[in-house]
Amino acid sequence: MEPHAKTVRRYWDAAEARDWLLFGSVLADDVVYELHQTRERIRGREAYLQFNTEYPGDWHVTIERIVADAAGASCWAMFAVGEESMAGISFFTFDSAGAIATIQDFWPESYDPPPGREHLTERF
Amino acid sequence: MEPHAKTVRRYWDAAEARDWLLFGSVLADDVVYELHQTRERIRGREAYLQFNTEYPGDWHVTIERIVADAAGASCWAMFAVGEESMAGISFFTFDSAGAIATIQDFWPESYDPPPGREHLTERF
Repeated sequence: MEPHAKTVRRYWDAAEARDWLLFGSVLADDVVYELHQTRERIRGREAYLQFNTEYPGDWHVTIERIVADAAGASCWAMFAVGEESMAGISFFTFDSAGAIATIQDFWPESYDPPPGREHLTERF
Repeated sequence: MEPHAKTVRRYWDAAEARDWLLFGSVLADDVVYELHQTRERIRGREAYLQFNTEYPGDWHVTIERIVADAAGASCWAMFAVGEESMAGISFFTFDSAGAIATIQDFWPESYDPPPGREHLTERF
């Protein structure tokens, strides 16, 4: 497995286990986390750990796909809170030591299909 | 460049150029396209080409990131319609000939940050 894919797996495994020491260990000191949809940015491991430890809700993560190459990685995971489930997508870059340097997160919400394409689509 | 990364670039370049012959050439005959948020699925190159040729709006695509490995690829692109711009994210798999076998698309929309984390975030 690509080393960056392993790191992404460890990142989500640590988050699922609320093992913040392990979670912090895969982050660069000066990691930058961006939420593209809200245009929020968090700088540094300490602040990003605090964001995660303070994040509300008993959420649980299941990895659907990891794609990784020498330049970075992306991950599509599903996040369940009770009966609800939503996708979360992250794009990662890494520093020369292999620690996560940047994370860009996307949280696409469900919506109803617009009319006019029922002749081409089925629902799942 | 990973062959799958080249194929993803060709896919979006062809879509941007409205070159539907080229666009179709990177798709497997039995390509499956899924819109995860609406739970819509389109089966086959012909239907997926029709979906794209019928898609409304004078949109333009700019690739932000492509990540590719032997098993697949993902792409984050920005889609502009007039002054508006939004992200689109796709995960791809490929058949043994290198054609696109599956596409799973995500269209995350902008939203306002929830309160309670202003002590950790800046805006960009």
